[in-house]
Amino acid sequence: MSNSVPDSEVTRKLARYIVDAQPGDLPAAVKKEGLRTLLNYVGCAVGGAKHEAVDIAVKALLPFSGVAHASLFGRAERFDIMHAAFINGLSSHVLDFDDTHLKTVIHPGGPVCSAIIAYAEQFKVSGEDFLNALILGVEAECRIGNCVYPDHYDRGWHITGSTGVFGAAAAVGKLMKLDEQQMLYALGVAASQPVGLREMFGTMTKPFHPGRAAQNGLFAAFLAQGGFTSSNQALEAKRGWCNVLSTKQDYSEITKGLGDTFEISINTYKPFACGIVIHPAIDGCAQLSTKHDLKAEDVAKVELKVHPLVLELTGKKTPQTGLEGKFSVYHSCAMAIIDREAGEHQYSDENVRSPKTIALRDKVEAVVDKAIHEHQADVTITTVKGEKLHLFVENAIGSLGRPMTNADLEAKFAGLSHDILEPARIKPLMDLCWNVEGLKDVAVLAQSGRAA
Amino acid sequence: MSNSVPDSEVTRKLARYIVDAQPGDLPAAVKKEGLRTLLNYVGCAVGGAKHEAVDIAVKALLPFSGVAHASLFGRAERFDIMHAAFINGLSSHVLDFDDTHLKTVIHPGGPVCSAIIAYAEQFKVSGEDFLNALILGVEAECRIGNCVYPDHYDRGWHITGSTGVFGAAAAVGKLMKLDEQQMLYALGVAASQPVGLREMFGTMTKPFHPGRAAQNGLFAAFLAQGGFTSSNQALEAKRGWCNVLSTKQDYSEITKGLGDTFEISINTYKPFACGIVIHPAIDGCAQLSTKHDLKAEDVAKVELKVHPLVLELTGKKTPQTGLEGKFSVYHSCAMAIIDREAGEHQYSDENVRSPKTIALRDKVEAVVDKAIHEHQADVTITTVKGEKLHLFVENAIGSLGRPMTNADLEAKFAGLSHDILEPARIKPLMDLCWNVEGLKDVAVLAQSGRAA
Repeated sequence: MSNSVPDSEVTRKLARYIVDAQPGDLPAAVKKEGLRTLLNYVGCAVGGAKHEAVDIAVKALLPFSGVAHASLFGRAERFDIMHAAFINGLSSHVLDFDDTHLKTVIHPGGPVCSAIIAYAEQFKVSGEDFLNALILGVEAECRIGNCVYPDHYDRGWHITGSTGVFGAAAAVGKLMKLDEQQMLYALGVAASQPVGLREMFGTMTKPFHPGRAAQNGLFAAFLAQGGFTSSNQALEAKRGWCNVLSTKQDYSEITKGLGDTFEISINTYKPFACGIVIHPAIDGCAQLSTKHDLKAEDVAKVELKVHPLVLELTGKKTPQTGLEGKFSVYHSCAMAIIDREAGEHQYSDENVRSPKTIALRDKVEAVVDKAIHEHQADVTITTVKGEKLHLFVENAIGSLGRPMTNADLEAKFAGLSHDILEPARIKPLMDLCWNVEGLKDVAVLAQSGRAA
Repeated sequence: MSNSVPDSEVTRKLARYIVDAQPGDLPAAVKKEGLRTLLNYVGCAVGGAKHEAVDIAVKALLPFSGVAHASLFGRAERFDIMHAAFINGLSSHVLDFDDTHLKTVIHPGGPVCSAIIAYAEQFKVSGEDFLNALILGVEAECRIGNCVYPDHYDRGWHITGSTGVFGAAAAVGKLMKLDEQQMLYALGVAASQPVGLREMFGTMTKPFHPGRAAQNGLFAAFLAQGGFTSSNQALEAKRGWCNVLSTKQDYSEITKGLGDTFEISINTYKPFACGIVIHPAIDGCAQLSTKHDLKAEDVAKVELKVHPLVLELTGKKTPQTGLEGKFSVYHSCAMAIIDREAGEHQYSDENVRSPKTIALRDKVEAVVDKAIHEHQADVTITTVKGEKLHLFVENAIGSLGRPMTNADLEAKFAGLSHDILEPARIKPLMDLCWNVEGLKDVAVLAQSGRAA
């Protein structure tokens, strides 16, 4: 734990950077990662749109919507932009399938993208400005996260919601062209509205967090734009956000290298719709199945050597529901062999209860090996013919060491959206994400993601 | 600091109590204090309605309002009920003149009353149910405050906003007739949305806190009503609200004596529109001025012996603005002699800059006396004729030891509202507060407080 003494301008330096940063300042690789973050976000928001939590929220909140300027991804209802930001943020996290800034476990896309896409439907925003705001919003939330991680998270804050408010406020404030004082106000009003306790994990209130963070960030930015005053030292003051919400603060994480390094460069995307801890084992099974063109009936035994956390978190031998399947390395590996993927579909109740899956699942054996790192797995499949197929996974697909390719992200997007959007609309929507910089008005992106 | 081990049903016991409690269970004295809390709240919300912070918020948020079912106190604009709750909560605290639960320094009326009055304009609520919900909401927020005070406040949370979300959610949930599970969800969604850092004191974001707490509580209750799930142990879990937001927890403060004791019984109301620390000195000056019918020109010298905090917090000798006047014991005592009160009017820029006030202010001398308790002051006024008038204030008016009478509260209400509402409407509005229990539909109260 390093507790640096803050200078008195931590929040101001961050605000000034956001106010000054121009699209032309962004390195090409950073913009590319911004586009990948956007594409992955849109796919997750579309994919989660029919979840029960989203149904409940839409029904409960529709009577309170203001003028419906904004669309929802994957749904037909329309809302005012603040409510739309909430619902889209909720959808984007409800499958636990969104992006991860591994250094802090923040899911950065949800709060930021939900806020600025909604904003862009009411107020004209160019694609260039949009991408810049997205990257700057992620920068703000992840740098603030770096400052307080891990203590802030260990204490029990769902860091995606607690820092996401800043990301959303900063990104929307950038689109509004707030001046430095207004941006300080926006960050100040954001600081007083952190969202998210980890106690809510496993309930609908978990995905509530990035949604409400997006909405709170918009709320803060609109008040700040009007001149609503706040502290100029919201982060570093004695009773500011970092001290009140964490016992560890490293303020240099916020102020050093602004404009030189970009947190979005280390954003990652989940290939599988389950906890990241079983991704190496799933990856190994899927790779062997593909390479040897395995079918369920070809397999006699699956032997896994895994990191201890795998059995601690996902050791469920006989899952009964799709949700329980996500906490079963046995089910996950069976599906990885049968379907060679592990998306939402592989975690349906139907798949978890299928006799074929259960038969294969029961052939999976997992043992803890302390020599195995969290991002590794050792997989041996013995076929009914007695052949032993072995693979040691050094870096699972989706990790920083082996990032998903653009084609992988498109396949994930297609899988998430194929039950939600008409097939002919999926590719054009992906193309809008990849080409967002060329748009004169980003509203078309939100409108194209709407369900008919 | 006492850290009790929680049972696993702290939140459930609170939820069950709120769900079960009936208007008929309330002792008469408790209901009476509920009415006083309501009257004081309405007066403060009316009085703050024209403040610049409220102007900014109304202008910024009006474009986002949903169907305008709800009125604002002291203003003509109308909003959907969630935004109205925010604005009324903001107004009610913007003058720092609202109620105080001294045990926790929570201002309990703002978050709770703002939420339920807005709710009652869209959904028919009887006065009996309304008063019950008000008292139960205050009970929830103050008990949770008692559990974590003082550490939670010392750490930097503005406890009015951080606990106010629970008060608003509980009170609205009661009006919705949520069942026990829904009430647990409401408290859970509330727990993930604490509002308010003390760093924001001195800015518009301070009164933002009770406003946003009211709005967040409504938001939580509507989601819970629809079945949006959350933790059942939002308060006591390892990563629940009490552990994450405080280092001290005394869970018995939440669960013991539910239905037997009522926190609203120890609510207090400020007689003067400034920090409570100078109330004894103001009270002494006003009493001597009244008793001896003093005018400014009669006074040669004012000598005060005060608690050390008085000069630490309000030692400003030459205030230049109304706001600065609130941090000047000298100005405050001068006005108390001239006008025999210290409401908002006595803290106008005009009064602070008036030569008459300045001349008297310069005759006030204050010395620290360690024998003087925080609620005491020793006042000696020497007249130009050489007479020495002395008063030792044991308990300032407005303290628990010398509560404001109903007539005092009415005078305060009249002072707050006389620049905002037409004179003929003030008395009927007060009467509606006093007689709220007899109303078949509380909407009339909100509508009667609206500016023409």
